[in-house]
Amino acid sequence: MLHTARLPLQDGDLLAAVDLGSNSFHMVVASYVLGQLRVVDRLRETVRMAEGLDRRGGLDPEFRQRALDCLSRFGQRLRDIPPQRVRAIATNTVRRLAAPQSFLMPAESALGHAIEVVAGREEARLIYLGVAHAQRPRDGGLRLVIDIGGGSTECIIGSGFEAIERESLQLGCIASTRRFFENGKLSRKRWKDALAEVTAEFQQFAGTYRALGWDEALGSSGTCKAIGDVCAAMKLTKGAITAEALPQLRDRMLQADRIDAIDLPGLSADRRPIIAGGVLVLEAAFAALGLQRLMVSKAAMREGVLYDMLGRGGVNDPRDVAVAALIQRYGIDNVQAGQVEASALRMFDQVAAAWMLDDDDRVMLARAARLHELGLAIAHSQYHVHGAYVLEHSDISGFSRQQQQFLAALVRTHRRKVPKSAFDALPDRLLATARRNAALLRLAVLLHRSHDTDPIPRLDARADDSSLRLTLDKRWLETRPLLKADLHGEPDDLAGLGIGLRIEAL
Amino acid sequence: MLHTARLPLQDGDLLAAVDLGSNSFHMVVASYVLGQLRVVDRLRETVRMAEGLDRRGGLDPEFRQRALDCLSRFGQRLRDIPPQRVRAIATNTVRRLAAPQSFLMPAESALGHAIEVVAGREEARLIYLGVAHAQRPRDGGLRLVIDIGGGSTECIIGSGFEAIERESLQLGCIASTRRFFENGKLSRKRWKDALAEVTAEFQQFAGTYRALGWDEALGSSGTCKAIGDVCAAMKLTKGAITAEALPQLRDRMLQADRIDAIDLPGLSADRRPIIAGGVLVLEAAFAALGLQRLMVSKAAMREGVLYDMLGRGGVNDPRDVAVAALIQRYGIDNVQAGQVEASALRMFDQVAAAWMLDDDDRVMLARAARLHELGLAIAHSQYHVHGAYVLEHSDISGFSRQQQQFLAALVRTHRRKVPKSAFDALPDRLLATARRNAALLRLAVLLHRSHDTDPIPRLDARADDSSLRLTLDKRWLETRPLLKADLHGEPDDLAGLGIGLRIEAL
Repeated sequence: MLHTARLPLQDGDLLAAVDLGSNSFHMVVASYVLGQLRVVDRLRETVRMAEGLDRRGGLDPEFRQRALDCLSRFGQRLRDIPPQRVRAIATNTVRRLAAPQSFLMPAESALGHAIEVVAGREEARLIYLGVAHAQRPRDGGLRLVIDIGGGSTECIIGSGFEAIERESLQLGCIASTRRFFENGKLSRKRWKDALAEVTAEFQQFAGTYRALGWDEALGSSGTCKAIGDVCAAMKLTKGAITAEALPQLRDRMLQADRIDAIDLPGLSADRRPIIAGGVLVLEAAFAALGLQRLMVSKAAMREGVLYDMLGRGGVNDPRDVAVAALIQRYGIDNVQAGQVEASALRMFDQVAAAWMLDDDDRVMLARAARLHELGLAIAHSQYHVHGAYVLEHSDISGFSRQQQQFLAALVRTHRRKVPKSAFDALPDRLLATARRNAALLRLAVLLHRSHDTDPIPRLDARADDSSLRLTLDKRWLETRPLLKADLHGEPDDLAGLGIGLRIEAL
Repeated sequence: MLHTARLPLQDGDLLAAVDLGSNSFHMVVASYVLGQLRVVDRLRETVRMAEGLDRRGGLDPEFRQRALDCLSRFGQRLRDIPPQRVRAIATNTVRRLAAPQSFLMPAESALGHAIEVVAGREEARLIYLGVAHAQRPRDGGLRLVIDIGGGSTECIIGSGFEAIERESLQLGCIASTRRFFENGKLSRKRWKDALAEVTAEFQQFAGTYRALGWDEALGSSGTCKAIGDVCAAMKLTKGAITAEALPQLRDRMLQADRIDAIDLPGLSADRRPIIAGGVLVLEAAFAALGLQRLMVSKAAMREGVLYDMLGRGGVNDPRDVAVAALIQRYGIDNVQAGQVEASALRMFDQVAAAWMLDDDDRVMLARAARLHELGLAIAHSQYHVHGAYVLEHSDISGFSRQQQQFLAALVRTHRRKVPKSAFDALPDRLLATARRNAALLRLAVLLHRSHDTDPIPRLDARADDSSLRLTLDKRWLETRPLLKADLHGEPDDLAGLGIGLRIEAL
């Protein structure tokens, strides 16, 4: 079992989720009451960050400033909520920035909290969780959820609170509107070509989804809600989106030859510039998946983020499940990994106070220890590099990109020389922690390199800001000439982590 | 089942294996008689290529020339043996060249046959196979085999003809002699430090090996044979190497303070410059593995290569087993992969003559089709890149490096744009075949992108040197607007492979 940090909650505690979406930024604050969440505050601002993204991954200064201003306002509301009870999530547009750190650093300052960038499939999982908590699914039934964001669209099939299939397409309402209706022009010809292209994207997984099937389909996100509202205003449905209503809505929309001129009843002015792409993506989804009816859910990723915080630390922490799945897929030697984990944590507990490491850091060190030999499944040679590659690039449930990069950096540096670039991908706020955890993992790996399972009689670790002193039992060490030789070279390597190492045998 | 090319053999046919080792080059020619191999010719030349390798992966021109001259001589002997019955294998030193192609191209010209570079663990498998055929192991017994080459050392535990554990260390007799006894100087102090370092390398897997255990231990390679001969000449044993004899031999060797002055009975002048590193590696192996007695085997990788040729194409082709293991580990959708494979081969069979593709190429295309979705286990986004990474870097039994790079290139280019660098790692002789197979795989993937399993009524492929014409059924295609849209963009992408594509619907 991994030792996971629990979020200690008392009645009345506040939790908050922030969603830096490609179209709008959302914040939701909830109060924890009797094991449940009660929403006490919501904020939404249309930032439309996706519009400020250029082809090379640059962000227009005006949009950047708008985003930072919004986050400052959110930050004011969040000022008194402790950091472990706030999760801020960035999605597609931030994923696509060429230099995400140069936006994230000021963004985190403005918000006063760390911001996690999540992959599309993780976003899909959180959306499903939010919708499942808002509209409790029938026992044993399967549910399809479609969420059309500004920059990406997520499609999930789940059962109960668990997502079974998750897909994320790089197709959102803003991105599609910009791409297919350049200069704001609409035409039936453009529509037909665009629809074929977008449907093909859905077609990649539509077969799998249709084979699995579902009992009901829900659309979350502002786009689905807006389309449902128009269907109701046109008196086509009472708010659901159906295979009959959607073409009528689309035809009415295409009566305009320019986006500016779109005239749909019940559509807000705010939504008009981006509705064409949204309708396009939804029509493609209906076609590829053979949908007849889509109900609209008001829930979204932000609610999923809140419930995910409650789930964390419990027996169903999705991150523990994900780590266990990696251990199984890559056939990791659990005995060896467990030995390394135990010694790493033994040292961690002795230096945590001096190095200002908290429970979350402890869990991440434990996970890195569990996973450090993952790359052996690919090849022995350079296995630390292969393991880091897999951890950096895999879809791993429950982890943000930065957390995956954190794990990858620890695995990358657990043996051999520490390359200068090993920590480049990490945000500055994680650097010191990553280097310190990396030092502890390296030493634990060294101590167990010979795979023997005898207990280590003495393992005293003391740290100050940039140095670590390790004391081992002299007689024990004398019988281990190989370990002695290994430890002899280690101070040079830890210098690469900016940590001075002194080893004593007493 | 994968369709594997069979090596058609008749009584009297000659087969040959060439081993471009780090110390010496070997060639063995055998005649196929009644299902068995009879060695009819052997050649050995001391090239000592590892000595010509510098730290940056450059090869000294003198050593390079010596290697090419040797290969020309071997080539003369092999002139009349058809290419599918000759396998030439390069190991550690070629693996470590910074620009292997600039050596391999003239080397292949000199030899008149393709040269495969194999990874350390594949080398280990071939060594085990050679030893197992020479000294048939007891039924059900476990056997340890140690092979100390010029540049690397392989350790294998196997049962019957199958290697169970395979390890390869970057420690050979030449490499160790150069690294630990700089300027040719010997001393007890140097020996002690070097021994601790080398033993630590073995220690990485010694625990696993000792836990598994073995009934007998054999040493192959010239180093083991030379040490066994010295043991016999010193009257310590009758040719085996024992835990008692080895320190006596080492002490006698260390009476010299320089390598030039080493005086060991029974040691050839040829072996003297590199014996110190060999004894060092062997003493470390004895210490780490707790060896008492090592028998000497005359068999080596080259015999394993010959027997591997016999095994290929049969039900036990190690490459089929390895591909099946990858399919299982990465949870590949076999139905989809099978559909893609079938259509790829359907086109292949129509263009094979015009494109001069042979049965081996057909098998490689089938394998790439089977494996093209491998990267999905890591992440959907960029999965072709992840799949190529795994195929390039994994230890895959039976495949040479170039073959793995070949598979990786096909998987890398099976969707999205074809990057200019996708084929850079391949030798020139494989380039045209790789591009042509890549084009067929791309088209097959497109045809099955929607995952439907309806048969394709018409799929006529015709090729000339640099162009491909594909004819599909018009009515069938008309009902598939997505495929039409996809095919529309494909000529641009195939241009990246240097192939002009024309698509007709009739």
